[in-house]
Amino acid sequence: MVGVAVIGAGYWGPNLVRNIQATPQLHLKTLCDLNVTRAREVLGRYSTVRATESLSETLADPDIQAVAVATPAATHLDVALAALEAGKHVLVEKPLASSYEDGLKLVNAAAERGLVLMLDHTFCYTPVVQRLRRLVHDGELGDIQYIDSVRINLGLVQPDIDVLWDLAPHDLSILDSILPPGVTPVAVAAHGSDPMHTGKACVAYISVQLSNGAIAHAHVNWLSPTKIRTMIVGGSKHTAVWNDLDPTQPLAVYNRGVDWSENPEAKRVSYRIGDMVAPALPTGEALRGVMAEFAAAIIEGRAPLTDGRSGLRVLAQLEAASASYAAGGTFVPVNGGTF
Amino acid sequence: MVGVAVIGAGYWGPNLVRNIQATPQLHLKTLCDLNVTRAREVLGRYSTVRATESLSETLADPDIQAVAVATPAATHLDVALAALEAGKHVLVEKPLASSYEDGLKLVNAAAERGLVLMLDHTFCYTPVVQRLRRLVHDGELGDIQYIDSVRINLGLVQPDIDVLWDLAPHDLSILDSILPPGVTPVAVAAHGSDPMHTGKACVAYISVQLSNGAIAHAHVNWLSPTKIRTMIVGGSKHTAVWNDLDPTQPLAVYNRGVDWSENPEAKRVSYRIGDMVAPALPTGEALRGVMAEFAAAIIEGRAPLTDGRSGLRVLAQLEAASASYAAGGTFVPVNGGTF
Amino acid sequence: MVGVAVIGAGYWGPNLVRNIQATPQLHLKTLCDLNVTRAREVLGRYSTVRATESLSETLADPDIQAVAVATPAATHLDVALAALEAGKHVLVEKPLASSYEDGLKLVNAAAERGLVLMLDHTFCYTPVVQRLRRLVHDGELGDIQYIDSVRINLGLVQPDIDVLWDLAPHDLSILDSILPPGVTPVAVAAHGSDPMHTGKACVAYISVQLSNGAIAHAHVNWLSPTKIRTMIVGGSKHTAVWNDLDPTQPLAVYNRGVDWSENPEAKRVSYRIGDMVAPALPTGEALRGVMAEFAAAIIEGRAPLTDGRSGLRVLAQLEAASASYAAGGTFVPVNGGTF
Amino acid sequence: MVGVAVIGAGYWGPNLVRNIQATPQLHLKTLCDLNVTRAREVLGRYSTVRATESLSETLADPDIQAVAVATPAATHLDVALAALEAGKHVLVEKPLASSYEDGLKLVNAAAERGLVLMLDHTFCYTPVVQRLRRLVHDGELGDIQYIDSVRINLGLVQPDIDVLWDLAPHDLSILDSILPPGVTPVAVAAHGSDPMHTGKACVAYISVQLSNGAIAHAHVNWLSPTKIRTMIVGGSKHTAVWNDLDPTQPLAVYNRGVDWSENPEAKRVSYRIGDMVAPALPTGEALRGVMAEFAAAIIEGRAPLTDGRSGLRVLAQLEAASASYAAGGTFVPVNGGTF
Repeated sequence: MVGVAVIGAGYWGPNLVRNIQATPQLHLKTLCDLNVTRAREVLGRYSTVRATESLSETLADPDIQAVAVATPAATHLDVALAALEAGKHVLVEKPLASSYEDGLKLVNAAAERGLVLMLDHTFCYTPVVQRLRRLVHDGELGDIQYIDSVRINLGLVQPDIDVLWDLAPHDLSILDSILPPGVTPVAVAAHGSDPMHTGKACVAYISVQLSNGAIAHAHVNWLSPTKIRTMIVGGSKHTAVWNDLDPTQPLAVYNRGVDWSENPEAKRVSYRIGDMVAPALPTGEALRGVMAEFAAAIIEGRAPLTDGRSGLRVLAQLEAASASYAAGGTFVPVNGGTF
Repeated sequence: MVGVAVIGAGYWGPNLVRNIQATPQLHLKTLCDLNVTRAREVLGRYSTVRATESLSETLADPDIQAVAVATPAATHLDVALAALEAGKHVLVEKPLASSYEDGLKLVNAAAERGLVLMLDHTFCYTPVVQRLRRLVHDGELGDIQYIDSVRINLGLVQPDIDVLWDLAPHDLSILDSILPPGVTPVAVAAHGSDPMHTGKACVAYISVQLSNGAIAHAHVNWLSPTKIRTMIVGGSKHTAVWNDLDPTQPLAVYNRGVDWSENPEAKRVSYRIGDMVAPALPTGEALRGVMAEFAAAIIEGRAPLTDGRSGLRVLAQLEAASASYAAGGTFVPVNGGTF
Repeated sequence: MVGVAVIGAGYWGPNLVRNIQATPQLHLKTLCDLNVTRAREVLGRYSTVRATESLSETLADPDIQAVAVATPAATHLDVALAALEAGKHVLVEKPLASSYEDGLKLVNAAAERGLVLMLDHTFCYTPVVQRLRRLVHDGELGDIQYIDSVRINLGLVQPDIDVLWDLAPHDLSILDSILPPGVTPVAVAAHGSDPMHTGKACVAYISVQLSNGAIAHAHVNWLSPTKIRTMIVGGSKHTAVWNDLDPTQPLAVYNRGVDWSENPEAKRVSYRIGDMVAPALPTGEALRGVMAEFAAAIIEGRAPLTDGRSGLRVLAQLEAASASYAAGGTFVPVNGGTF
Repeated sequence: MVGVAVIGAGYWGPNLVRNIQATPQLHLKTLCDLNVTRAREVLGRYSTVRATESLSETLADPDIQAVAVATPAATHLDVALAALEAGKHVLVEKPLASSYEDGLKLVNAAAERGLVLMLDHTFCYTPVVQRLRRLVHDGELGDIQYIDSVRINLGLVQPDIDVLWDLAPHDLSILDSILPPGVTPVAVAAHGSDPMHTGKACVAYISVQLSNGAIAHAHVNWLSPTKIRTMIVGGSKHTAVWNDLDPTQPLAVYNRGVDWSENPEAKRVSYRIGDMVAPALPTGEALRGVMAEFAAAIIEGRAPLTDGRSGLRVLAQLEAASASYAAGGTFVPVNGGTF
């Protein structure tokens, strides 16, 4: 069993604590938070897990082989780097770091030491995204024509990041997970506004040009009183529609669409109106899958599905989005890096 | 009673025929289409209304004081101008014309002759939009913070216009109708793609910067197998959510939102989670309201709610959107004109 | 073409007028109502159809071969019998008559003269019910285990009939249409209440024991502010769920259920959790199908799908329901008649 | 703090364990199950709570003042009686016992010793039911006219009880909780069927005549592949509709209905079509409220909201339902008892 510590007992930490405890291959040793009272509250009165405020003590513990980092984004570089330097495998909340440059440092640090660096791109471990990935990779949807995501609700106005950096990592990591081999983000544009004068965008729209000519788009919004979580993956053969708030039928695959035949005589459009299939999907908490993958990557000495590089690809697009937003909304090329 | 002719017996013409016949102040005399057989089929076997293929004959008929134009967009200038020059009041389908310049000719022609020129911005006559307009104008929503519209379904790939010019006039005319006095569109940006290589955008996103710093955004799409018609009007006090496909509860007004107080000591965000009210709305076909307004404007010698100038304002934004799309998605100023 | 008259210009008459006019094989000659002004209003200012208040004149017209009766239920016997005696084919609104005995008179009168007597069981001509019928008859659902229908909304409290006689004919005629050969209603029970003291049940529940041991149940209600129209057809292989208020996906066929194997050692239950398929269905108004069937039955000299006998079977169950309601809710056998 | 043991580590036990641990006034000491391995698994690797297979040892522990019983219904009498005789306060899963007679023994045993006997009628502690109770008791809904509940899904075919005894306790306990003072169940009727020949009803309908002339009805069903959980509480002033599967808007209060004025000249019906209000409700797990009430009743020495007598009232209606089902569906009076 892999000994694990969780760093950060804030909003997301308790979920990590609960799911690590439910994973047979992991053994939770320590919950570390600057506010040790908060850490104790999260563990509760009935727990045998240790609470501590000392990161250095936690990283020095030889029984701990891995850490899960759930601290604010601005601290990811310091905390994760310290952990890697202490020889620990690292699972880190999104975004990987505050910048592409910082993220690259983490990826390199992990690579040099042969350690697992994994992003907690939770949505990639849901049954729906795994099915979407399969539908795309197996060619069932045909050529990807457009991807449209809406992720809006009343959200916390974050102190350090805007709504793009807060919410769009979900959309971009899902995109990263499901895009077929060879199709990559080429350029990103972003529009948005800050109607409450908070100093950062609270409503934003991000468009991603893909290398096959398709467009991916996400609407992220902290100000919507009505919660919407939908993603449409439009393909030339089938189109998949995911409603994350419909627990009984989250995914629908439509055999409907437009066919377009181009020939010398007549450009012609025709419509397919076929059945819709809502596939039966396994149930279960996605974070359980994250932990299983983290444990497996450590034990098998392999890269996890959402490794540091996937985190870097998301950061490259976020930086392009910020640059586009600052420049009036025109498309900005994505840093392809050398990874 | 005002004698009326309908020009064009295609997709929308039959709806005009039916609703004019149901309007007491109007008397339908003629249905004119180049294909007179089609016109006769639309009227059916039991009708006393005349079918004709001759536009000139129709416009020469002294019993006809007004015409409703439902021909393809590219012909609006010629047909509507001929009608105005023949001294007829004109109701025209959206968009007013193929360009701002052409639209301006129609507006001037009508103004010179003191004739009514009205746009069939049908949605503006729905009970929901009229209630939205009232909610905004009466200040019940507070300051407008963002407006988000989704208008997607499997649509006809139009031969002459792209999805922006086909569908966005609906969103832009609704916007024109509900925006509070003094808040105007300043600049427009558009992203999109043509994944099927039809030669025109089939998926598009349009962002409109408003003069108060807010953003309006619309997603228009011909390729979606699932039909969505929603509009969120986010205000500082209340937010209205319109689902046009929910006949039993199309409008919901939420007393929820984010409050943000800025003071020297502490920027602070707080949340209101209040009740939602779905107002009872009258039922009835919007096109009935269009015809009542057309008749009233003619009889009372006044401008209709959706007059030629509202059509011009929509054209100015469509032209800016096309320019932005061609230029890589950056914001393009809206032609303010002198109207 | 078959010359037709509509008798009754009240709530439903205008729909008959509209749909007969749209049916090529039928020619609408006359709309007859005791209130001829009302009849003229229904026809409108542009119609060539004659309005009259005289039933006898209408029935004496040799150009009229068929009549559609949309008068109050209590008058069906007199009007329809007069029409049959005048040699006209008859389409009659549900219920066929006020009693089984009266209904039998109409069936016999039509049979003696070789005339078509058809019930306007409109729902039986919807694409959904026709698909349900096929799913059941082809064995795709397996053995029918239960059928549950909910038909509730704010309804007119009828002057002459209770909610069972007003709404349950819809459920019972659908049941009649979809039940597999050999499965028949055996006994009926009804519970209900009259909470507003109107003198008749406004909320009622009807249970129908079927000959194969299954149960069919309907909730009919005039007092519900929320409209619900669902029917579940539970089968041993698949279960179909119909939501009549969901225009985009009215029918869902679930490959889910409970399997039960009985053997000497162990009674065992297992579950199937398979996909759901929402079949693509044709669109179109059901009443158009009613008229097409009426015309075809007359022209081909055959019984229509919903002939007088189907109306009698519904009446037999309504009478059993009323008897059960009066007797405290116990099951009452259905009059099998000799038809 | 009150020391507590949970008896039964099966389907529901883990929820009790989790919620007791989260309740400050309670201290979980022991989880007792005949299968101690199962108990250990429920507690997990990180717990300080004791697992045991010995009920007698558990009841002999002086640190334990209260027990929560989550064993099969058939064992409730023995386990709960032993606990009461050992001087423990008791929280028991529904139904209280297998018969009214057995339930009465438990109520008497608790009363004699001055111990708390509480039913885990979980739904009564949801924000929705508490709001419904208030709406009814404060007169906001007006006179109750009808209550309609649907509780259907793919359910476990229980080895010892039919679907009425399994699911209807939820509906009957909610009814017990929200009915206004003075309105009581008078008689119960039940219809149902066993289409899979399991030896017990798997689909059932229960009708409850109330003392004010209204009717309450529930559809309970183990065989439905689609899950529905709705309750309509129809009142003369307002009607409340609860959809338990809509987390964002579970409760809707309609200002719509039918008004009926009776006077010598004219019985008249009119309709109100007013707004709908979806009240903001607190969130949180209902079982947390159950535990808070259990703790408060013990500490304050008072009867809990859902005391033994509420459990008896539910049992009386279940017995009447079974008697009606056996007798062909006629209404059977409810045992009023002397409690």
